[in-house]
Amino acid sequence: MIEALLGDEKVEVERALERACEWLSDELPDELFQPALHAVLSGGKRLRPLLCVVAYRACGGRTGPAVYDLGAAIELIHAYSLMHDDLPCMDDADLRRGQPTPHTIFGEAVTARAGTALIPAASLWALTASDALGVDEAVSRRIVSELNRAAGAGGMVGGQALDLLGEGQHLDSTELDRQHGMKTGALLTVSLVIGGLAAGASDTAIAGLESFGRGIGLAFQVTDDILDATEVAADLGKHPSDGLHDKSTYVSLYGLEEATRRARVLAEEATEALRGAGIDAPALMALASYVVERKR
Amino acid sequence: MIEALLGDEKVEVERALERACEWLSDELPDELFQPALHAVLSGGKRLRPLLCVVAYRACGGRTGPAVYDLGAAIELIHAYSLMHDDLPCMDDADLRRGQPTPHTIFGEAVTARAGTALIPAASLWALTASDALGVDEAVSRRIVSELNRAAGAGGMVGGQALDLLGEGQHLDSTELDRQHGMKTGALLTVSLVIGGLAAGASDTAIAGLESFGRGIGLAFQVTDDILDATEVAADLGKHPSDGLHDKSTYVSLYGLEEATRRARVLAEEATEALRGAGIDAPALMALASYVVERKR
Repeated sequence: MIEALLGDEKVEVERALERACEWLSDELPDELFQPALHAVLSGGKRLRPLLCVVAYRACGGRTGPAVYDLGAAIELIHAYSLMHDDLPCMDDADLRRGQPTPHTIFGEAVTARAGTALIPAASLWALTASDALGVDEAVSRRIVSELNRAAGAGGMVGGQALDLLGEGQHLDSTELDRQHGMKTGALLTVSLVIGGLAAGASDTAIAGLESFGRGIGLAFQVTDDILDATEVAADLGKHPSDGLHDKSTYVSLYGLEEATRRARVLAEEATEALRGAGIDAPALMALASYVVERKR
Repeated sequence: MIEALLGDEKVEVERALERACEWLSDELPDELFQPALHAVLSGGKRLRPLLCVVAYRACGGRTGPAVYDLGAAIELIHAYSLMHDDLPCMDDADLRRGQPTPHTIFGEAVTARAGTALIPAASLWALTASDALGVDEAVSRRIVSELNRAAGAGGMVGGQALDLLGEGQHLDSTELDRQHGMKTGALLTVSLVIGGLAAGASDTAIAGLESFGRGIGLAFQVTDDILDATEVAADLGKHPSDGLHDKSTYVSLYGLEEATRRARVLAEEATEALRGAGIDAPALMALASYVVERKR
């Protein structure tokens, strides 16, 4: 179902990521560009750009390819987060999606720098895409503000730090929700919000997208924990580092069955929130199902 | 001279940095806030905020304390750069300004995360300050764009990477100028540009501030190399890591005497460019002299 609805969109997202990398190749010294390229174009679900594009369409956005560029800007932040998470001084992972991680090829210091460079690059690329979309100054300003909020201390970076500090500690469900809400949920949510903002969505619609994003963000993480608990390294294409570092997961907290139920309930509540805000978008509903049904 | 002209301004800059840290204390988990606080409030010349404030006044800016907050946003990027430069996987420095570096107290992983968090935080704080200054949406958008350009691949992060890659290599003067133009010059220049933009400066004035910034940026770095070559670790309050890592410096390239002459010529050319753009600001001229006359 997801492929039928979003297969073409994913092709467009990959093209947009190639455009972003072409721009980066001019911006970055080659020694930094290579690890960034490796990280950005090494596959993945492209969930964040897809959410951005689909929210944009659901809110009436009609302009051409620039919305994919906006989605690509968000994916640059995601790519940064994976590059830093995998570093020896962080999770020390040598494989991701079956590929060697950038630092195993390019070294730790250069990979750390290249990852960091993607944060300001994402802001600049989002502004370029906003211009191409013809959104007004106030909206493009809000877009860059939302992106930095989700990337920063209250979002991705803050969540990564809590993740790091949570190693070896046993978090309760509120603490785990907070950590993942920051680390994963904030960027997923802002992908939807930015898509909505670019389409000129109402405040009600933006609030609906936010509730939807928070819900599927948590559902996504619960599902990740379920997949980590039920798959082996060979199938994963990465080593299950969370288990190795003794982190709290939803499966360790609830057990497999209850975690599975919880993921479904979260996804259902998320789609309810969306409908409640007057957004009836089959593609967003399909993404919500995909988040909990996916095999990885 | 510099103290008489800018002593009061520096007091205001320190107050603004305290306001920025107060905001950060709400934004960051405490474990990240502590290393950030240590880095931001551990002293320093505060050259970037001072340049921002002085350029703002020189271009006719008159509004109250918010321009110091704008300068503080730029200093957050500078603080990030020092935190990352000093990490074990980078320059591995354990002292700066006579103080233990953050990672020696808080650990490498947390300090790396805290430093990274300052990049999006700087964008958000610059937008907040722009609002308080009452600049319009287009200008605040341009301010955040300039800040990210100077922080990112074409500026700070890119220059840091070139610096890293240049270890053990012998750079010629063009390569060294490029590296330092990115690593130090871009953020010094953008401090002036952002101050000018906030004051509603003309394009001619902004171009003059840019030339001035590039000139004093290089003069600053040449002077740093001279100080590194002529002082011992005890006076520096840091270990002279560049020498240890066998990096090219202006002193190794030109010799001490010619480097000293070059720093003065650069500063003089910079002040000429400023006068040429119709900006006759004693405080900026004093800062140009300070950059090459300072003892550290």
